[in-house]
Amino acid sequence: MIYSIIGSGAIGAYYGAKLAKAGKDVHFLFHRDYDDVVAGGLQVDSCDGSFHLDSVNAYHSADVMPKSDVVLVCLKSVNNSLLADLLPPLLHDNTLVVLIENGIGVEADVQKMFPDVQLAAGLAFICSAKTEPARVNHQCYGYINIGNYSCRDAALVQRVVADFNEAGVKATEVEYNEARWKKAVWNMPFNGLTVVMNTQTDSLLANPSTRCLVKDLMMEVVRAAQACGVKNIGEDFADKMIQNTLDMTPYSPSMKLDYDFGRPMEVYYLYTRPIEEARKAGYEMTKLQMLEQQLRFCDAR
Amino acid sequence: MIYSIIGSGAIGAYYGAKLAKAGKDVHFLFHRDYDDVVAGGLQVDSCDGSFHLDSVNAYHSADVMPKSDVVLVCLKSVNNSLLADLLPPLLHDNTLVVLIENGIGVEADVQKMFPDVQLAAGLAFICSAKTEPARVNHQCYGYINIGNYSCRDAALVQRVVADFNEAGVKATEVEYNEARWKKAVWNMPFNGLTVVMNTQTDSLLANPSTRCLVKDLMMEVVRAAQACGVKNIGEDFADKMIQNTLDMTPYSPSMKLDYDFGRPMEVYYLYTRPIEEARKAGYEMTKLQMLEQQLRFCDAR
Repeated sequence: MIYSIIGSGAIGAYYGAKLAKAGKDVHFLFHRDYDDVVAGGLQVDSCDGSFHLDSVNAYHSADVMPKSDVVLVCLKSVNNSLLADLLPPLLHDNTLVVLIENGIGVEADVQKMFPDVQLAAGLAFICSAKTEPARVNHQCYGYINIGNYSCRDAALVQRVVADFNEAGVKATEVEYNEARWKKAVWNMPFNGLTVVMNTQTDSLLANPSTRCLVKDLMMEVVRAAQACGVKNIGEDFADKMIQNTLDMTPYSPSMKLDYDFGRPMEVYYLYTRPIEEARKAGYEMTKLQMLEQQLRFCDAR
Repeated sequence: MIYSIIGSGAIGAYYGAKLAKAGKDVHFLFHRDYDDVVAGGLQVDSCDGSFHLDSVNAYHSADVMPKSDVVLVCLKSVNNSLLADLLPPLLHDNTLVVLIENGIGVEADVQKMFPDVQLAAGLAFICSAKTEPARVNHQCYGYINIGNYSCRDAALVQRVVADFNEAGVKATEVEYNEARWKKAVWNMPFNGLTVVMNTQTDSLLANPSTRCLVKDLMMEVVRAAQACGVKNIGEDFADKMIQNTLDMTPYSPSMKLDYDFGRPMEVYYLYTRPIEEARKAGYEMTKLQMLEQQLRFCDAR
C-alpha cells in the first residue's frame, strides 16, 4: 500500500510519520518545510514517545508523487480548492482519499470535484502543533476515527484502520454521518466561543453563564444531528463532551489558533454549512447562527 | 417646584444644570464632584451652547436636601439599591420620582421599595460625558421622553415636561410601556454587541454579518414588545433605528464605556429582566439570551 500525505502540517506530518516509522510506504507533500526535511529528516516530539525519521519521502510538488492507494488529506478546509490540482497526480482507479479535516460537508464538496474518487472522513482527536520547521509537537490524544463516505471497497477502509493501529495510532471505523455530527457537538461551541470571547475551553466552563451557553450550543448541534438522521445521539452525549473537556488541560481549539495567528478561520465548514444542512432538514440552529455572524465579524477584522 | 437630582453624573448634572439655568429651583446630590462644585460651580460644555453655573445647590448627603416635588434619579441601575437610603429624605406625599435610567423593569422594582411613591420613566436620548470634576461635556442630542408609570396627577407629569421644554431640553410625554420597549430595540443589540465584539456602532453596521445580527436582535425585541402588549411597533421601527444609527457618528454605548472603564455593566435591567418579561409573555429572546450569557462572561472578567 502506498500512502501519500497532502498537507504535512501538525496533523498530517504526525500521522504520516507514525505510519512511516511502522514501515509503511509513505510519501509526504511538504510546502514550507521541504528543504529542512530533505536536509535533516523529520522530528516528532510526542507524549507517546518521541522519534526521528532520518529519511523521508518528501516532495515539493504533487506532480512527481507516486500514484497512491491511500491519500490522507490534512489541509485546512479553507484550502480545499487546491485539491483540484494536488489530487489528480496521485489517483488511480481505486485510490481511497481520507479527508482528515474539520466540519460538515467537506466530503460532499470534494466528491463534486471528483465524482468517481473513493472518499472517507478521518476524524482526528489530537493536540498537535508544528513548533518549528521539520518538527512536530504531539502533546496529547491522537486517535482517529474513520468513516466511509463513498468507498466501494469496505476491505480497503478496514485495512487503513488496521495500518493505523499497527503504527500505534488508535483507529476505529465509525458510521460517517454520526461521526461527523458528533465531532461537531464539540467543535461548534468551543471553536467559535474561544475566538469571540478571546479565551480557552477551561474559562468558558468555569463561568456559569458560558458553561450554560456551551451546553445550549451543543444541544443545538444534537438537535440538528437528529434532524439530519443521526439516531444514536442525545443530551447525554453533550454532557459527556462537557465532562471530557473539564478533564482536559486548558485548550485553544484550532480556530482560536488560526485567529490568533492571523490565518483564515474555517467558518464555512464548521458553521455555515452545518447550519445550512440543519435548515434543509427543518431545524434552525439559532444561537450557532449568531456565533457564525460574530465569527464573520472577527474574520473580517 | 423643587427639583432634586440624585446621581449628578454626565446626564443628571446636564439636565439639572439646564433646569437651574432656566431659573428652576434645583438641588444636586454630588458624590465625587462635591468639593469642586462648591468651590467653582458647574461647567457645561454643550453642542447647544456652553454655560457655567456659578452658584449650585450642591449637597453631599441626601439627608440635608429639601423635600422635593420632582426627583430626577440619574443613577446607573446597578446602584438602585442605594435609593432605599437616598430617596426617603426627599419625599413628600406627592413627590414625582422620574427614573432616568436604562432598561426594562426599573420602575416595577423601585415601586416595590416605595409602594406609594409616584413614578415616571425618563428616557434620555443624549451623548454626554463627565470629562473632569464639575464639568459635563454634552456632545449631541439631548431630548428626553417622559412616560407616566404610577403618577396619580397627570398635570404634574405635564408640568415636568413643560419645565424641560422651557429650559431648552426637548421633552415629550410618551406611553410608558411602548417607550421603554422602543428604547430597548436600540439598547439591547448595540450595548451588548459593542462590548462582546469590542467595537463601535459604525463597525457593527459596516460588516454585513453583524449588520444582519443587529437586525435579528432588534426583531427579537420588537417581537418581545408585541408579546408584552406594545401594539405600535413593527419591523419598520427596527429599520428606522438602524438608519438613525448609520447617520450617527461612530458611537460607544454606555455599557461599552462602563466595560472599558472597569465599571459594572447594567446586564440585569438591559438583558436579564426584559428576557424574563418576554418569556412570561410567551416569547423566547433566543439570541439576546446568548448575548446576555456572553456579557456575564465579560462582566466576570
